[in-house]
Amino acid sequence: MVIVKVHFGTDFMDQFAQPSSAPELLVELDRGAAETLSSQLERRLRAAVRAGRLKPGSTLPSTRALASQLGISRGLVVAAYAQLGAEGYLVLSRGAAARVAESVMPGAESSRPRRSYRVAHNLFPSLPDYGAFPRERWLASYRRALKAAPDVELAYGDSRGSEQLRAALVSYLGRVRGVSASEEHALACSGFASALGLLARVLCRSGSRTMGVEDPGHAVIRGIVERTGLRPVPIPVDDEGIDVDALVAASPDAVLVTPAHQFPTGVVLSPERRTRLLDWAASTGALVAEDDYDAEFRYDRPAVGALQGLAPERVAYLGSTSKTLAPGLRLGWLVAPSRLVRALVDEVLYTVITPPRLEQLAFADFLERGELDRHLRRMRLRYRKRRDVLVGALARELPELEMRGVAAGLHVFAVLPPGSDEQRLLAAARGRGIGLTGLTEHAIRPPREQALVLGYALSPEPALRAAVRELAAAFSA
Amino acid sequence: MVIVKVHFGTDFMDQFAQPSSAPELLVELDRGAAETLSSQLERRLRAAVRAGRLKPGSTLPSTRALASQLGISRGLVVAAYAQLGAEGYLVLSRGAAARVAESVMPGAESSRPRRSYRVAHNLFPSLPDYGAFPRERWLASYRRALKAAPDVELAYGDSRGSEQLRAALVSYLGRVRGVSASEEHALACSGFASALGLLARVLCRSGSRTMGVEDPGHAVIRGIVERTGLRPVPIPVDDEGIDVDALVAASPDAVLVTPAHQFPTGVVLSPERRTRLLDWAASTGALVAEDDYDAEFRYDRPAVGALQGLAPERVAYLGSTSKTLAPGLRLGWLVAPSRLVRALVDEVLYTVITPPRLEQLAFADFLERGELDRHLRRMRLRYRKRRDVLVGALARELPELEMRGVAAGLHVFAVLPPGSDEQRLLAAARGRGIGLTGLTEHAIRPPREQALVLGYALSPEPALRAAVRELAAAFSA
Repeated sequence: MVIVKVHFGTDFMDQFAQPSSAPELLVELDRGAAETLSSQLERRLRAAVRAGRLKPGSTLPSTRALASQLGISRGLVVAAYAQLGAEGYLVLSRGAAARVAESVMPGAESSRPRRSYRVAHNLFPSLPDYGAFPRERWLASYRRALKAAPDVELAYGDSRGSEQLRAALVSYLGRVRGVSASEEHALACSGFASALGLLARVLCRSGSRTMGVEDPGHAVIRGIVERTGLRPVPIPVDDEGIDVDALVAASPDAVLVTPAHQFPTGVVLSPERRTRLLDWAASTGALVAEDDYDAEFRYDRPAVGALQGLAPERVAYLGSTSKTLAPGLRLGWLVAPSRLVRALVDEVLYTVITPPRLEQLAFADFLERGELDRHLRRMRLRYRKRRDVLVGALARELPELEMRGVAAGLHVFAVLPPGSDEQRLLAAARGRGIGLTGLTEHAIRPPREQALVLGYALSPEPALRAAVRELAAAFSA
Repeated sequence: MVIVKVHFGTDFMDQFAQPSSAPELLVELDRGAAETLSSQLERRLRAAVRAGRLKPGSTLPSTRALASQLGISRGLVVAAYAQLGAEGYLVLSRGAAARVAESVMPGAESSRPRRSYRVAHNLFPSLPDYGAFPRERWLASYRRALKAAPDVELAYGDSRGSEQLRAALVSYLGRVRGVSASEEHALACSGFASALGLLARVLCRSGSRTMGVEDPGHAVIRGIVERTGLRPVPIPVDDEGIDVDALVAASPDAVLVTPAHQFPTGVVLSPERRTRLLDWAASTGALVAEDDYDAEFRYDRPAVGALQGLAPERVAYLGSTSKTLAPGLRLGWLVAPSRLVRALVDEVLYTVITPPRLEQLAFADFLERGELDRHLRRMRLRYRKRRDVLVGALARELPELEMRGVAAGLHVFAVLPPGSDEQRLLAAARGRGIGLTGLTEHAIRPPREQALVLGYALSPEPALRAAVRELAAAFSA
């Protein structure tokens, strides 16, 4: 059995992959990890003391009891206790139970907001199958980059990031997404959120006050906008994407849109709306920020090209590797209209938030060699199958759900029948260990409908079938 | 001859390592780079077209002329022209000169603020000898980290960064700098500026309005503080470090100090001032932010321990690898008082600005294996010798300069005789290709004295001697 603790913090809308732990366990070991069990045990015991979960003076279980509880050999526990004794965390005396040293001053009380339910079935959206990250290929790119980089790449360098990466990026984005830009317009960022924060701060400094955001849309993204000083203005989304009439009426200084695959509704911005959106931008001078967050995953036809390609001087394009490779890379980009480049560079000069140079160069190599294309081909097949399985199972087990949106991305949008109680259904599902989110969590104004937002990227096909069976059971209970 | 372009952007106070290029060159090639000359040539020609430096329709030099100008074989130029012809950037026709295609739309005008003088002698402070970055050892750590990391490290994870890195960091900082903290208090950040920005934003959100900053101090750092919304309040620095009486009088909500080695004066905060600074913090509840920016480099005696160790709940500790390894790593940290941890984590949740997980794990491995210690031992020897050479040469050639500050860090602070004209001397030095800065650039209020701030980390010993001879010539002219 692999037990992993739920991590704390940036799990973007609580959409995390790990099942939470049984609270009665003193420490937990991950048998799937490369770290040895004895190293894990030592580290976690030390952390438990430091965090005050093991109080000064308190008694530890006997080595025999802990070994049995964890299902490991007693020798490992004896060795871990001895190490922590030598480090001063534990007091060991022959014939008595090991105790936490009185002298240890616990650190800050751990303030981890633990998820209140156990996740056995993972249907969270927004995370890719990061376990499929092509480690060997990435390492090869990193090695080549490290060997080839001139020394000067190890200094600060251009605020926009490495020229080589920016050239590789605009070439890739031009080919795959129809983005029209030279590397002069591209900035390497520490993920999407950092790109959006950078853009919003620059808009704010240049006098913008408001940014339209899609409603429903990603709650964390609204938070990012808000924290930069811009006021997010909710603009409704319907079956054709963002409502441009409502946008024109609200007339914010900028608008953030997801034209290729709206989150969470899964709709694609219609051709007519695309034109009208750009007309609005041209006539008002407002900026369109394009969040192209999972455009690489379209399963039924080629993805629509980026809006940016139609109006490079009206649209700022934002993307990242968080959905295509892994969020842990913290790599993103911003392709900006000419008029913003200077201000963006100034802003970076005072934040110096750019990805590490070596990682930038590794990614440039990875792009140039077509490794991202190869990885995406593999993942598209995998996700498409998983999506088909999820949609099929939902149709079978919960025919009352109505699937909306196109075959794309990493989640489906399942509308509940009129009169449903979304909150009650979510609670029932969570009570059965299903990790999922509902439309309400993503909506700013109360939505007219109720819906579930179900991710399929992280679960193998049998797990998806099991999850849907459990979901059906939760609903019928 | 190695010609490298001056990069644009984050060169922190114009303290860059590269000599600027002769403007008449169409493209420049770096013979020291690992990238092939043909690849460099292609890339730079492409960039010149995109940036509009080569205008649509304009004629290129003949392959023979360009080859001769660059000192490379004509074949390389022919191949580069052919490639760019195939890509549509150039129009090639037999018997006529190559032209830039009319259809190419140049991108944003390159807005690179070029340094207005050529740097032949590099005495900029604030950059380490990044060419000495231990690439092989780093790669070994990265490889181990990549192989060992559990999949979940590739997701978002704890906002504070990898638990393994935070544990390794607090252990290292405890051992080397006397920092007292558990990993619960440590956050991995994208360099020092990102750590400071994070801290300042959180202070700002919790109601702080002002942050004391040392005067003189680093101008970019004041800019970082200012852009978070806090107002920087200049506090004078004298021979004992920050003037605590002035601090008490100004009574800002927080203060940023460099106790181990003040920038740029090079003084160490005196024991009495340390106590009074912490007393002030305790009595007012103000936060002390400790910028421990080059504390690992003390040459005459062991460095004074971090202030943070004396009052972990009053002092936030900030550091990075930018001076110890290389700025390009973009790795830094913040060790925060317990009461701030929750708010810091919330802030990171909405910026998601953390170093890439793999880099964090690589650095954890690098620390755990003592690689940083080994590297620092090597670099301390090297810098100490360079410092001795610079100080010796200055004493010989420019005896009128008075050296201040302790034997530490990466720069010396050389006070000019009364009645000197710092600006004129700087201009004369720059006219002779010496890259350096003066006290005035770092001062908020007009300083009582005039001084030069001279870095020695980046130049080998003969280059330092030559630079000082040139400096003396500039002064006597």
